[in-house]
Amino acid sequence: MDGMPEAEQEVHACDSAITLAFSVLGKRWNGMILSVLGPGPSSFVSLRKAVAGISDTVLSDRLVELVEVGLVSRKVAVGPPVTVSYELTSAGAELVPTMQELGVWAQRNLRR
Amino acid sequence: MDGMPEAEQEVHACDSAITLAFSVLGKRWNGMILSVLGPGPSSFVSLRKAVAGISDTVLSDRLVELVEVGLVSRKVAVGPPVTVSYELTSAGAELVPTMQELGVWAQRNLRR
Repeated sequence: MDGMPEAEQEVHACDSAITLAFSVLGKRWNGMILSVLGPGPSSFVSLRKAVAGISDTVLSDRLVELVEVGLVSRKVAVGPPVTVSYELTSAGAELVPTMQELGVWAQRNLRR
Repeated sequence: MDGMPEAEQEVHACDSAITLAFSVLGKRWNGMILSVLGPGPSSFVSLRKAVAGISDTVLSDRLVELVEVGLVSRKVAVGPPVTVSYELTSAGAELVPTMQELGVWAQRNLRR
């Protein structure tokens, strides 16, 4: 790096693990959906009510994505009536304590 | 809540502190920008190189927002040459350990 301006030498690429984390959490609603599922399984309707402002379509898309990346599982209970619920996988559940820390940090440091 | 279907009774609204945290972190790039600033101040050019894929316009917008919410400060050093750098405020710096936990979690639980 000899001869490069000082600013160029200071480049520190974004940590790949943090980039990976925000490939999921840096997408609007995902953190809130995972957080709502922290205490236990939830139906689609309950989730939509708990995540204020989300639309049916977006919630549906996000749940498909969260299932695909292995953080949420979709359970179908044969009825009648047939019921569908969403819950955190063990990978999703491992995130709960860190999400709570994020909440504590936000309360201390962000204005509402 | 008597008489309401069981699913209705299970509604647990998203924790307001976590909603607050994701009002900033649930926006694409913000987590990565904050993470890159963790080790120390950075110029705009260095930031743009470190956050792979971000455009000048979006980085500029995000920095304005992060300054507005009090997580980043913009420092101008009178020159010559005049140099501008961005660094975490104490509120931003308080997030660093939790971001590192998110990275550890992602490495354990998300596929690349």
